[in-house]
Amino acid sequence: MKVNGEHKRTIWVEPDGWAVGVIDQTLLPHRYALARWETVEDAVRGIATMQVRGAPLIGASAAYGMCLALRADPSDENLEAAYAKLSATRPTAINLKWALDEIVAAVRNRPRDERVVAAYRRAAEICDEDVAINQAIGRHGGDLIAAAAGRKRPGEPVNVLTHCNAGWLATVDWGTALAPIYLAHDGGIRLHVWADETRPRNQGASLTAWELGQHGVPHTVIPDSAGGHLMQHGMVDLAIVGTDRVTADGDVCNKIGTYLKALAARDNGVPFYVALPSPTIDFSVRDGLSEVPIEQRAAEEVATMTGRTADGRIETVTIVPEGSAVANYGFDVTPARLVTGLITERGMIAAGREALARAFPERAGAAR
Amino acid sequence: MKVNGEHKRTIWVEPDGWAVGVIDQTLLPHRYALARWETVEDAVRGIATMQVRGAPLIGASAAYGMCLALRADPSDENLEAAYAKLSATRPTAINLKWALDEIVAAVRNRPRDERVVAAYRRAAEICDEDVAINQAIGRHGGDLIAAAAGRKRPGEPVNVLTHCNAGWLATVDWGTALAPIYLAHDGGIRLHVWADETRPRNQGASLTAWELGQHGVPHTVIPDSAGGHLMQHGMVDLAIVGTDRVTADGDVCNKIGTYLKALAARDNGVPFYVALPSPTIDFSVRDGLSEVPIEQRAAEEVATMTGRTADGRIETVTIVPEGSAVANYGFDVTPARLVTGLITERGMIAAGREALARAFPERAGAAR
Repeated sequence: MKVNGEHKRTIWVEPDGWAVGVIDQTLLPHRYALARWETVEDAVRGIATMQVRGAPLIGASAAYGMCLALRADPSDENLEAAYAKLSATRPTAINLKWALDEIVAAVRNRPRDERVVAAYRRAAEICDEDVAINQAIGRHGGDLIAAAAGRKRPGEPVNVLTHCNAGWLATVDWGTALAPIYLAHDGGIRLHVWADETRPRNQGASLTAWELGQHGVPHTVIPDSAGGHLMQHGMVDLAIVGTDRVTADGDVCNKIGTYLKALAARDNGVPFYVALPSPTIDFSVRDGLSEVPIEQRAAEEVATMTGRTADGRIETVTIVPEGSAVANYGFDVTPARLVTGLITERGMIAAGREALARAFPERAGAAR
Repeated sequence: MKVNGEHKRTIWVEPDGWAVGVIDQTLLPHRYALARWETVEDAVRGIATMQVRGAPLIGASAAYGMCLALRADPSDENLEAAYAKLSATRPTAINLKWALDEIVAAVRNRPRDERVVAAYRRAAEICDEDVAINQAIGRHGGDLIAAAAGRKRPGEPVNVLTHCNAGWLATVDWGTALAPIYLAHDGGIRLHVWADETRPRNQGASLTAWELGQHGVPHTVIPDSAGGHLMQHGMVDLAIVGTDRVTADGDVCNKIGTYLKALAARDNGVPFYVALPSPTIDFSVRDGLSEVPIEQRAAEEVATMTGRTADGRIETVTIVPEGSAVANYGFDVTPARLVTGLITERGMIAAGREALARAFPERAGAAR
């Protein structure tokens, strides 16, 4: 997507052909800066400190981290050491382990002098595959936006509500929930995005608003509490969110607060869609509420807020009284009954066991 | 309620018998400071800058502002001038105008040398009446908490979720939504409060958490997005919120986000109560969604956050990107169908036209 008018991915190989470039997302939206990784340690630090975040981008970053490690030393010992270091950065990220395994598979049975080239080739493929999946999601979801546009009066934009950041910054390009928005926008459909602020880490107010703004998509940041009111007053045509995990029965685990928006959508007849690449479906789990553990994150994320001061410094302030307890549940589960449809690279699929198994028979069968 | 172990109201007459003391709420929760008002201008400034806030407290403050004005000059001309100045501070606050009228009625037909004493007497009554109403709300709501405690296993606290601040800081003492909590807590019932942060102004994270902490009530601050997840997992026994206006049909206008919590409560079988003094009922309006206008507030409230820095300064930081639009709807409407009951000074009343008219026949009749 665009930054300062130029097309950019979130991760790339530098012109020298080996160093890895990324957008340093820790400084957004207040500063746009790039980082250059030259060693596996750079990649480990970048993933651990959230210079890069979002499951697909973490996977791509880990793959390139392996490339950097092999460039320094293509031995089996170093391959194993890099695998261990990189997989420890974000232990719960499924894509990370998958990407590391992909690189290992690509180089294991090769002579040492061919390993670096093979690793870079597979890392580039991982990135291109992510882009292709997201474009497919974008096309299928874009059709829904186009259909909504057909029901609007001339000149009125389609209003789409989203939660958190499932945009291109979380992937290599296009994003998942935002891919349909970018494709529809680029295709000339008038639309406007309500971006939930998404406390406590504010990924909506910072990342989603920033990337929509850079790409020129009209949008408005709202507190997480506002979506229900907007839906009650006909100001939301459809909602599209991303997800961290979808169960075999279609329950959706996503950023805390997604469930409340889905309830409001149901109460007001607003379609509620979840966009996802199919690897996000976990066919080994059925009931999201009882089977998906919800991560509790650091209290400081709720107790503090980071932003820029009037004189341009980045400052963190505490907003709760000393001595007050704070709870920070990272995710919630939206039951399948509240989900209008799952937008995947294979099209729109009903959020239910049979439809998911029919759409992905090779994966549903393997999990039985 | 208690501050630093001592009982305090939010407004009082100083030991000199005429100056007015208030808690300066603009500095909470980071600093606890008192303000002393000696002139009507002090009161005007205090109300306008939100040293005091909350409908009942604004009314009491305006009443004492009139006292200070009359002490300086008890003439009809000054009475009218003070009325105009005070009523312009918060034009939409219904209690403010009511309290001003009460003072005018108490002094109008009296000789000038009796007016000051009569004004102070009526202002003190207004405060005591507010306290009595809130204690009655507290008793009726406390019974609900006691009943919930009876259904818990021994040693387990009753978990109450609340939104925004409808506590004693918004009133003269006790509060509305928090009055049942204080009475139950003081009565020895084990309870724990989930305090919604309440973006964008953070009244929950700042005021509710502070006053519960000062009074010794166990509580946990949560992002506004968390309540649904907690209810899904049986971690909320009941919700109690305040309200700015209840319609004749029982629709509830309250801080933005209340509706989403009511939806989650309904979806999970959690009782959802609204606590209010009966003057909050507007019998001239029926349908909250179509008839109650929703105030749009300043974008800065969403775009910025104020807190204390590591070195103790109070700092405001901006959290959205430059150029992103921001919307700030102050309130939403929770339809009566989602409200389990209205806790008033006359007891628990169903959120519906007939029950409200039966409980307050003198007011329902007058509005017809």
